[in-house]
Amino acid sequence: AAEEAAVRAQAETVRRLKQDKADPDEIAKEVSKLLEMKAQLGADEGKHKFVLKTPKGTRDFGPREMAIRERAFKAIISCFKRHGAEVIDTPVFELKETLTGKYGEDSKLIYDLKDQGGELLSLRYDLTVPFARYLAMNKITNIKRYHIAKVYRRDNPAMTRGRYREFYQCDFDIAGQFDPMIPDAECLKIVHEILSDLQLGDFVIKVNDRRILDGMFAVCGVPDSKFRTICSSVDKLDKMPWEEVRSEMVGEKGLSPEAADRIGEYVQLHGGLDLIERLLQDPKLSQNKLAKEGLGDMKLLFEYLTLFGITGKISFDLSLARGLDYYTGVIFEAVLLQQENEHVEEPVSVGSVAGGGRYDGLVGMFDPKGRKVPCVGVSIGIERIFSILEQRLEASEEKVRTTETQVLVASAQKKLLEERLKLISELWDAGIKAEMLYKKNPKLLNQLQYCEDTGIPLVAIVGEQELKDGVVKLRIVATREEVNVRRESLVEEIRIRTSQC
Amino acid sequence: AAEEAAVRAQAETVRRLKQDKADPDEIAKEVSKLLEMKAQLGADEGKHKFVLKTPKGTRDFGPREMAIRERAFKAIISCFKRHGAEVIDTPVFELKETLTGKYGEDSKLIYDLKDQGGELLSLRYDLTVPFARYLAMNKITNIKRYHIAKVYRRDNPAMTRGRYREFYQCDFDIAGQFDPMIPDAECLKIVHEILSDLQLGDFVIKVNDRRILDGMFAVCGVPDSKFRTICSSVDKLDKMPWEEVRSEMVGEKGLSPEAADRIGEYVQLHGGLDLIERLLQDPKLSQNKLAKEGLGDMKLLFEYLTLFGITGKISFDLSLARGLDYYTGVIFEAVLLQQENEHVEEPVSVGSVAGGGRYDGLVGMFDPKGRKVPCVGVSIGIERIFSILEQRLEASEEKVRTTETQVLVASAQKKLLEERLKLISELWDAGIKAEMLYKKNPKLLNQLQYCEDTGIPLVAIVGEQELKDGVVKLRIVATREEVNVRRESLVEEIRIRTSQC
Repeated sequence: AAEEAAVRAQAETVRRLKQDKADPDEIAKEVSKLLEMKAQLGADEGKHKFVLKTPKGTRDFGPREMAIRERAFKAIISCFKRHGAEVIDTPVFELKETLTGKYGEDSKLIYDLKDQGGELLSLRYDLTVPFARYLAMNKITNIKRYHIAKVYRRDNPAMTRGRYREFYQCDFDIAGQFDPMIPDAECLKIVHEILSDLQLGDFVIKVNDRRILDGMFAVCGVPDSKFRTICSSVDKLDKMPWEEVRSEMVGEKGLSPEAADRIGEYVQLHGGLDLIERLLQDPKLSQNKLAKEGLGDMKLLFEYLTLFGITGKISFDLSLARGLDYYTGVIFEAVLLQQENEHVEEPVSVGSVAGGGRYDGLVGMFDPKGRKVPCVGVSIGIERIFSILEQRLEASEEKVRTTETQVLVASAQKKLLEERLKLISELWDAGIKAEMLYKKNPKLLNQLQYCEDTGIPLVAIVGEQELKDGVVKLRIVATREEVNVRRESLVEEIRIRTSQC
Repeated sequence: AAEEAAVRAQAETVRRLKQDKADPDEIAKEVSKLLEMKAQLGADEGKHKFVLKTPKGTRDFGPREMAIRERAFKAIISCFKRHGAEVIDTPVFELKETLTGKYGEDSKLIYDLKDQGGELLSLRYDLTVPFARYLAMNKITNIKRYHIAKVYRRDNPAMTRGRYREFYQCDFDIAGQFDPMIPDAECLKIVHEILSDLQLGDFVIKVNDRRILDGMFAVCGVPDSKFRTICSSVDKLDKMPWEEVRSEMVGEKGLSPEAADRIGEYVQLHGGLDLIERLLQDPKLSQNKLAKEGLGDMKLLFEYLTLFGITGKISFDLSLARGLDYYTGVIFEAVLLQQENEHVEEPVSVGSVAGGGRYDGLVGMFDPKGRKVPCVGVSIGIERIFSILEQRLEASEEKVRTTETQVLVASAQKKLLEERLKLISELWDAGIKAEMLYKKNPKLLNQLQYCEDTGIPLVAIVGEQELKDGVVKLRIVATREEVNVRRESLVEEIRIRTSQC
């Protein structure tokens, strides 16, 4: 009861801020707090009485959330289709062995199914490994596809910031042997198009290359056997300051302090073509074959991105590492920048909304003969985008329709259920989106109120007199205007009045 | 190798039948055999070499299958929206306790997740129980929603007949306290609309009522405690002859032979309003309160279905039982009828493609205070529908496009990669669906061939001369016609030539 009172107080705070037309950022913050309190309250309720909750780190999507989700998906899918992608789908679980050895230190987050006899199964952790399995299994060497589906990670959820245990990924990948960096550049163009289209505010796409990282580790004196684990440490630089990452490298992972310090110098570098040119002249790095290859390709990539006109949002960033084991070349990650307020000089990163890279070896791990299929792809982190869109909508006054119903079939008098059923059946058969109240004798006022509540624009009212005259009274909800329409023209009239082409 | 030869021989058989324009049913049969052989071969391959397969009872959807799937979904979703439904989504897994005690004898088919610390979870078995949990958890007493998602059953798969362990359900449900049989009738109308729209051939929707079944069991002398298990036996009548079901009732379930024989007389009855009237006069059944209620509502239902004009496809069938525990009133199931050939009098049922019913107690099982929310709903069994559509398409010559690309950006000469990148970027930014080959210097022939293979209707060709003249050569793939279009008019020209409004 105390918690309930706190939620009510918080709801009142939000109401007042909205009424006072306060700073939208402040409203969003308080709304987010309210949502968190409500979620907590729901979880507690479940614990004490019945078990009435979704599993930890998951949530339902109600009609309103689905409307937002569909909007975001529409923007993303139309971008993927604009780039000529086909679509595939794979099962939600894979053989456990399929996922083994692909995710490095993150493997502990995989959900396993119980052994109930038969195969050992795990829920998919991403869409990339199932894609590689699909290519190898079907001997496909050339495809451009997208896949939108839920993936599962037993991570620590932070739901108000859009981090869930069940979440959507929207993946676009290009598989095949092609000339360097052309598909890679297209993936970055896609991220740029989607983030611009969704109007999420300013963003930057950080780019790096695993070969540059490995070359850098080599010239800094990291032993070969420690490349992957040091790479995991570097990956934490977006959440931890350098000093902490350094002490993890030296303390936990046994790297020499000198090597760590050399890494520290490189990972603070970020820039554009100028930085690439400078590193190509770097006396140590330019001597390393891998680094040189990576830098050469990075230069080519920037040339293509210049032709696409998007280098303004791209940052070559030596601190970008990405955790997954399977990347072999270019890697990238898009982060939204939030202008905390006008007095702060540097925009603050609020987290990754897209990421990806090149993985030329993954398909070969599945092929019986080890045949490689080079791949590059991008994954849009849609949950964080949902969160932003939801909070923005919650803070705004916009009314979201959750159905597409064009007309309510109603009656003003009693005993007209049969006539309503006959009329609505005619409308459905003609393709009109129509509803009626499931009452024998609903009150006209309730029927009109239903239209107000749900945003149905038209009411078709049947009455004794109208039936005799062969007409239906059509009411326009917004204007309260009423016109008699001949029954045989009703479908056409509804179409015209609700067309939005 | 022997199996591979067999597959090749079967493929040849199919090819020959198609070439000879043989009976479509025969072709479909042989195609289905071929698919089964291929699947078996794939499974065996996996076993011997690498593990390169999807889990038992699951499958990937490639671009072609996805195109078919999207078509079916489109028809179904547009029907659900026509009836004013909102949409929701729930997590793929639920707390194990949420599913406990809802599915009767089928509970053994539930997939459990491994206990990795934390909550005990199970994959959802259907969409109805999660829906009821959602209503109770959010205290919703009134909603009309659809939900399309995958569900999981550890059943014996029969994949060529569309029976999988991971499969889609398309559910439409109406929750709320309403006047009798109005929402129930709408659910049947929806099944009728969808099956007609998908043109799957002739079908019948069998209807019964749990109250009529229970009343029947009572007057036949079945002890109360055996109602559910005898109901499960009756449910098998669509797959087993009466004699086998009878011996299960008597032998395994300990029912008296006399009671079984009385049931046997009832369950062979099916008909329409006439049968309902007859049973309302039945000296035994009409004395049973439950049966009388059920029959009264069944009569009302048929009156509404008459107004909808769909009684021609509806059969009141006393043998219909449906396995799930949670039904409390009307139940129904749609089966496709296959005219084996013209000489057979009675059409043969080829299996259920939709089912549903009323479940007034399920939400109350989740509500801490046991508050009931009456519900009725329908589930479309889309996998069997996919199977039919796939086999039909496989047997036809129809070419299915798997992308929507409008134009390929190509060049006839070398060293024009940069120009292609610039042009395609312009097209993407203008919303045109465009592709290019990821080669520095692709041959024109290969570029044109790519259009033929994938169905891209237009080619935008950049060349030295065209660049100088400020034009792009637009080639219409179907006619091989070529026209020079001014660069600033290209987007508009592509739109006009590919518009399908």
